[in-house]
Amino acid sequence: MGTARPAFGRVLADGEVRHCFVEDAAVRFIDRPGYEDGARETGVAPLAGLTVLAPVAPGKIVAVGLNYRAHAAELDMAVQAEPILFMKPATAVIGPGQAIVRPARSRQVDYEAELVLVVGRRCKQVAADEAAQYVAGYTCGNDVTARDLQRIDGQWTRAKSFDTFCPLGPWVVPEAPAAEACVSTCVDGVEVQHGFVADMIVSALELLAFASGVMTLEPGDVIMTGTPPGVGPLQSGQTVSVAVEGVGQLTNPVL
Amino acid sequence: MGTARPAFGRVLADGEVRHCFVEDAAVRFIDRPGYEDGARETGVAPLAGLTVLAPVAPGKIVAVGLNYRAHAAELDMAVQAEPILFMKPATAVIGPGQAIVRPARSRQVDYEAELVLVVGRRCKQVAADEAAQYVAGYTCGNDVTARDLQRIDGQWTRAKSFDTFCPLGPWVVPEAPAAEACVSTCVDGVEVQHGFVADMIVSALELLAFASGVMTLEPGDVIMTGTPPGVGPLQSGQTVSVAVEGVGQLTNPVL
Repeated sequence: MGTARPAFGRVLADGEVRHCFVEDAAVRFIDRPGYEDGARETGVAPLAGLTVLAPVAPGKIVAVGLNYRAHAAELDMAVQAEPILFMKPATAVIGPGQAIVRPARSRQVDYEAELVLVVGRRCKQVAADEAAQYVAGYTCGNDVTARDLQRIDGQWTRAKSFDTFCPLGPWVVPEAPAAEACVSTCVDGVEVQHGFVADMIVSALELLAFASGVMTLEPGDVIMTGTPPGVGPLQSGQTVSVAVEGVGQLTNPVL
Repeated sequence: MGTARPAFGRVLADGEVRHCFVEDAAVRFIDRPGYEDGARETGVAPLAGLTVLAPVAPGKIVAVGLNYRAHAAELDMAVQAEPILFMKPATAVIGPGQAIVRPARSRQVDYEAELVLVVGRRCKQVAADEAAQYVAGYTCGNDVTARDLQRIDGQWTRAKSFDTFCPLGPWVVPEAPAAEACVSTCVDGVEVQHGFVADMIVSALELLAFASGVMTLEPGDVIMTGTPPGVGPLQSGQTVSVAVEGVGQLTNPVL
């Protein structure tokens, strides 16, 4: 194309889920997900008045535990030699503005701010230095976790799989964030979590390579890259906002 | 319909993936997955000469650890008060006859015979005594596991997520197996694993209810119900066959 690729995502327009590019205060509707080649534009609309959805509908959500040393320390967990993978189900995904619902079964539901990589092309057993070509872009994610159930189970799946426990968005931006970009969470406007992309133990591209050595990754799959120190609980009525500098800000109310 | 529902699944016919009902030695092609209502029949063919695929293409594969006391004991793991959930990715699914590929990264790839429940209707927070109405049927599964990586990681996801690590099939039968039905594995014709449906700590319907209390279950999702004692390694060149009495037999070569 010659020019920089635009950010992309999904909106609800006239009751219909639509893929779109987004620039400034307008969206350009497209006939397929923004990570696919050859998208045809089918209209333009002002962003105001549209409901922004999670930018992709992932088949797989692959996530990594303990990817910032200071977060492992605060949970009193050892950092391992290789990334520790887990998965969240696609049914947990919500978009910006949708409510995180605290399940009755848990007494401690925590936020976890994360940089999220979106896979653009099917791949398997990719080398880290070739991983960039399989990336559609980056978005923000909140790896919401029922901390008490995580401790009870040992396995992390249940604690991280409740419906609404995977806010994603608002848009997928094609450029990787800078090493000095901040990954942070604000609860009711007060910053509670703060780290830097450069502090990750394993980089986003290395994680794509590692995960692709286990399972075939498909377009729209997402890789959540771990959370910096400062995790803590969410209460009903609060608003939580995850931000990744250069990528976006993702805000959700808590029920 | 008045009559018993037929078993269903998927086959490859003339290079195309086709849904079908199966009875005796013939398939009747249908225009949608067999768990959906109102399927229209579009043709008949002899089963011989068709490639049988995994009977569903699940969105989610929810599995449970340590659901037979004797298996927990052989792994020296404690049985917990509530089921321990984990997930396998849809990209791990293969059908009968397809090869299980042992990854270079692992030195011990184990078979795990399992009864698999197939979800027929979208559901959430279902009570165990109402769970049956959301079930499409049952099939066989092999929860292939890289045992060494499971031990290294602590989390089970990587060990259970390699491509080809989720053989399913051959068909989805609508009737639940009897309590006294045997769940078994043969390697090269020698029985190596053996248990009974009645020995499960938590029943298949109770597992559906439990999982649905965490995440919305969707048609085609599968729930793997745990493995009886006798797990052990697979070597290249072997053939592994999982059988659930009254449900079927699932055979795969090992590479």
